[in-house]
Amino acid sequence: MKTLMIHSDYLEYEAKQKTKMAEETEKLSGKMDECLTVFMAVERDDESDPKAVVKNVVDEIKKTAENLKVENVVLYPYAHLSSNLGSPDVAKKILKDVEELLAPNYNVLRSPFGWYKAFKISCKGHPLSELSRQISAERNEEAEDKEKS
Amino acid sequence: MKTLMIHSDYLEYEAKQKTKMAEETEKLSGKMDECLTVFMAVERDDESDPKAVVKNVVDEIKKTAENLKVENVVLYPYAHLSSNLGSPDVAKKILKDVEELLAPNYNVLRSPFGWYKAFKISCKGHPLSELSRQISAERNEEAEDKEKS
Ligand SMILES: [Mg+2]
Repeated sequence: MKTLMIHSDYLEYEAKQKTKMAEETEKLSGKMDECLTVFMAVERDDESDPKAVVKNVVDEIKKTAENLKVENVVLYPYAHLSSNLGSPDVAKKILKDVEELLAPNYNVLRSPFGWYKAFKISCKGHPLSELSRQISAERNEEAEDKEKS
Repeated sequence: MKTLMIHSDYLEYEAKQKTKMAEETEKLSGKMDECLTVFMAVERDDESDPKAVVKNVVDEIKKTAENLKVENVVLYPYAHLSSNLGSPDVAKKILKDVEELLAPNYNVLRSPFGWYKAFKISCKGHPLSELSRQISAERNEEAEDKEKS
């Protein structure tokens, strides 16, 4: 899975139009302030062990959220982060499981999968406000956040 | 080169802190409305033929801008789009050359390379408002913009 985590003043979205893979949802729009926005692209390799990928990405999000002292997390499917995407069904399942595992400890907003969405985001811009990570079923790749700007 | 092009209501940035690779600049902040924001990560492969990469990415930007009827283009270095980055010097050169080739036909704002930056962006959310492309020295990869949301 490819992830891009952005420490945000706010993230706002509005679902505009369905694609063929659109998830049924009532949450056609949403907003969160002072949050960690996690853009996520589930990949083909994740299909071999989705449970392990979910566990690793949840650990990564928790570690980052604690580090940044944020309690609000936005999970935002973002296929543009990868050029070898997993199947939509596996992706939806993984995203829902991540939401479920975070829910007890964080306020979680998950934007709907498979919709064209308008969004607004404000990135805080401190050295740890943008973190890109490749997360797999094995162990977590080293964070690629040093000196990336 | 990895690119992500977002048709934006606005893009605003503010350079906050230098990294070792920071470019000297007076443009510590900037804003554009109704623009095509082009996030770009120059990659190692681009170093073999930077001129050809510049030409291909300029063609791609022009095609997209004409399609979206925008005259304003923001060039935004974004290393998080790739996990095999080119050298900072090659990247800066390529980004400056892209700016130079677009300048005669577009209002171009290029945010500085090698700074931690705060930014705000508003994505319009129509089906062509987010386009991810791998651009190389050869020919342009097919656009990966279908059904990606
Ligand atoms: Mg105008």
